[in-house]
Amino acid sequence: MSALLDVPAELQPVQAQLTAFLLRVEEQIQHALASDLPPVHRLVRHVERYRGKMVRPTLVGVTGLAAGATELSSDHVKVAAVCEMIHLATLVHDDVLDEADTRRRASTVNALHGNETAVILGDYLISAAYTLCSTLDTNEAALVIGQTGMTLCSGELLQLHHRENFSLDEPTYYEIVRRKTASLIAAACRLGASATLRRSPSPAGPQPADLVARVEAFGLDIGVAFQIQDDLLDLTGEQSVVGKSVGKDVEKGKLTLPLIHHLTTADAPQRGRSLVLLDDASISPAQRTRALVTAMSGTDSIAFAQAQALRLIRRAQAAIEPLPPTPARQMLHLMAEAVVSRAF
Amino acid sequence: MSALLDVPAELQPVQAQLTAFLLRVEEQIQHALASDLPPVHRLVRHVERYRGKMVRPTLVGVTGLAAGATELSSDHVKVAAVCEMIHLATLVHDDVLDEADTRRRASTVNALHGNETAVILGDYLISAAYTLCSTLDTNEAALVIGQTGMTLCSGELLQLHHRENFSLDEPTYYEIVRRKTASLIAAACRLGASATLRRSPSPAGPQPADLVARVEAFGLDIGVAFQIQDDLLDLTGEQSVVGKSVGKDVEKGKLTLPLIHHLTTADAPQRGRSLVLLDDASISPAQRTRALVTAMSGTDSIAFAQAQALRLIRRAQAAIEPLPPTPARQMLHLMAEAVVSRAF
Repeated sequence: MSALLDVPAELQPVQAQLTAFLLRVEEQIQHALASDLPPVHRLVRHVERYRGKMVRPTLVGVTGLAAGATELSSDHVKVAAVCEMIHLATLVHDDVLDEADTRRRASTVNALHGNETAVILGDYLISAAYTLCSTLDTNEAALVIGQTGMTLCSGELLQLHHRENFSLDEPTYYEIVRRKTASLIAAACRLGASATLRRSPSPAGPQPADLVARVEAFGLDIGVAFQIQDDLLDLTGEQSVVGKSVGKDVEKGKLTLPLIHHLTTADAPQRGRSLVLLDDASISPAQRTRALVTAMSGTDSIAFAQAQALRLIRRAQAAIEPLPPTPARQMLHLMAEAVVSRAF
Repeated sequence: MSALLDVPAELQPVQAQLTAFLLRVEEQIQHALASDLPPVHRLVRHVERYRGKMVRPTLVGVTGLAAGATELSSDHVKVAAVCEMIHLATLVHDDVLDEADTRRRASTVNALHGNETAVILGDYLISAAYTLCSTLDTNEAALVIGQTGMTLCSGELLQLHHRENFSLDEPTYYEIVRRKTASLIAAACRLGASATLRRSPSPAGPQPADLVARVEAFGLDIGVAFQIQDDLLDLTGEQSVVGKSVGKDVEKGKLTLPLIHHLTTADAPQRGRSLVLLDDASISPAQRTRALVTAMSGTDSIAFAQAQALRLIRRAQAAIEPLPPTPARQMLHLMAEAVVSRAF
């Protein structure tokens, strides 16, 4: 799900356009985060190394093109940088919450400089994102980003509230995931398209409001699928491939879709055994996770979650079907596909 | 330094105006923080109880009036709410950093719900503040608040960087304090005045730009003085009066103005004894603090810091002298005075 997908020949020009765009976004982020205080500047430089697949900036670019732009503007660069900076802030704060030592094979800020520095650095990143947002001509992006920030945090708070709640149901799981993960991905799609339409209304295809609604719905669905895939990898992934430790969700008392399905569909004795296992402090979270995955084979819960992710991807692809049939639309289609095929 | 100062009779109408204004600000904050998720909403309601003296909203109101407003507008209410929400967010995150259990005689979020919830709730407050900012007609306030957020965080990060640095010098201390405390107070003053001037240019007195610069300089100076007074109370205050535990700075390895003065002016043997004391883990931070205060009497360092705070207050009062001689200007003068006379 990155700009560096293997793409067919007809998408090579769009791919090249996106690669150049992401370089501009990186420069914009560096500029927006720069500090006149050397100790602060060093921290910022460290966090910039967290940047991975640049999923959100890529989506801003592709939706910008799919909405009819021939060139990506400085507005696209700014909103892409803002989305990535908000994402970076959540990573820095998540690492504090997870007591994580490594992120993308680098040491985390909390591991290097302590939780205090990591909390405040995250706040700095959020403030820098909003500052950059406020330099745009209209306040639409600032409003969307502010509201998305609230949605995202409320999703995280809901998840924390339901920690160790082994009766968590599917609707609540989806509510959490839509908010904490999908909302920012949806915002990136929406802001990419509307940055195009603000300058030049869409020449063909759906009306502007409908186009924006469609790419936003697309983003929401692939965002939820992305999180389901993440949750699956935490259960069944190989640490060396995923790049972070697995079994974290069981350790943190977070019920995810496969486990919710398992606990609601297993017969009473199996359900009882799995509940005992979830709470069994005598074995490590990784061992508990492996044992639970074995138990889940009886209810086909891994396959169930995979099917749900795929269903969302198909719905996302259908949402953008009425857009003009451009290479950018085809790229969105491929990016959606990559969400469920990734092993990282 | 609150709207509830004892004021002379001629200021009673302004006082009443401010009391009504602060009620509107409270309603605005409640509205801006409301969540549709009950567990999130309960957390927000808890944090609203942290509100204490409402210093920043009061300053927005008084500077708004001092700039020529006869009535305070919904713009004033919004920027006042935004400043207070940013302040609330810093309190919630500070309590995580300080591992504090109580705040304004209520339990802290981290004590009740854990650090994770407190970190994310602080992020929620910041996002809500920026969202509210983005509903204003112009993006000036959003830009000022975003930049102030960055300044504030960079001050905190600089302070963390210098923890346990017993050679911290006065210029660096002032840099930290200007950023982490005074910047938001200065922003409140600036935004209060400019919310007035945006609608109706000042009828008398200095030109708008000069007026805004003057109230901003006023805010910066009283903000630094406010922090010096806070630091003094951490050394010499009574816990029952201050409302929070004292000796925290020594415990956290934070050098403040009196101690910096003491260490740079004491003779070598005394300096050595004080440095040993600072690092003496065999006695409690409160005992270390008391012993250091005793040592400081030899260098008059408490009196030195008090004099510096007073100097800043006089400079702040001089900065607003050219403003039209309204009751609001007089109120600003009194609020500045209250900074150094407070024992809370």
